[in-house]
Amino acid sequence: MFVYSIMKFRVEIRYKEGVEDPEAVTILKNFNILGYKGIRDVRTSKVYYIDADDRDEVSEITSKILANPVIHTYTIEAIEGSSH
Amino acid sequence: MFVYSIMKFRVEIRYKEGVEDPEAVTILKNFNILGYKGIRDVRTSKVYYIDADDRDEVSEITSKILANPVIHTYTIEAIEGSSH
Repeated sequence: MFVYSIMKFRVEIRYKEGVEDPEAVTILKNFNILGYKGIRDVRTSKVYYIDADDRDEVSEITSKILANPVIHTYTIEAIEGSSH
Repeated sequence: MFVYSIMKFRVEIRYKEGVEDPEAVTILKNFNILGYKGIRDVRTSKVYYIDADDRDEVSEITSKILANPVIHTYTIEAIEGSSH
C-alpha cells in the first residue's frame, strides 16, 4: 500500500542583525507619537506555512524566491506531517 | 533597589479561517508556474517581536493597530524577560 504524505513546514524570514527593518522603525515611531511610551523596540518577521511533498523544494523556494540572501536570514522547521 | 525590567513579546497575526490570503494565493500560483509542483499549500502570517514595559500596551497596540479584527486572528506570547 502506497501512503502519500504531505509535510508541513514553517519558514520564518527576518532581517539580518544590523540591517534596518523599515516597517519596524515606522511602527515604533508611530506608537510613541500615539502615546504608547512603554513600547521600547519592534522587529518584524514574515512566516510562511507551507504544505509540500518534501523539504528540498521548500528549501529551494525559500533561498531563491522568498528570502533575499543579502538582507534576510531564515529558518525552516518541519512542524508536523500529515498523510492523505 | 528598583529593578526596571523590559519584557519581550512575540505577536503573530494570521488571516482567519475562510478569509483569502492574497499573498499566499499569488505565491502558490507562481511556484506552480515555476515548476515547483510539490508545493501544495501556502499560508502567510506576520510576526512582531516587541520589547515593552508591560503586556497591556502590547495587547492594546495589537488589537487596535497591528491586527484587523475583521480578517485577522492573533496570538501574543511573552518570550523571555530581560532587565536593565
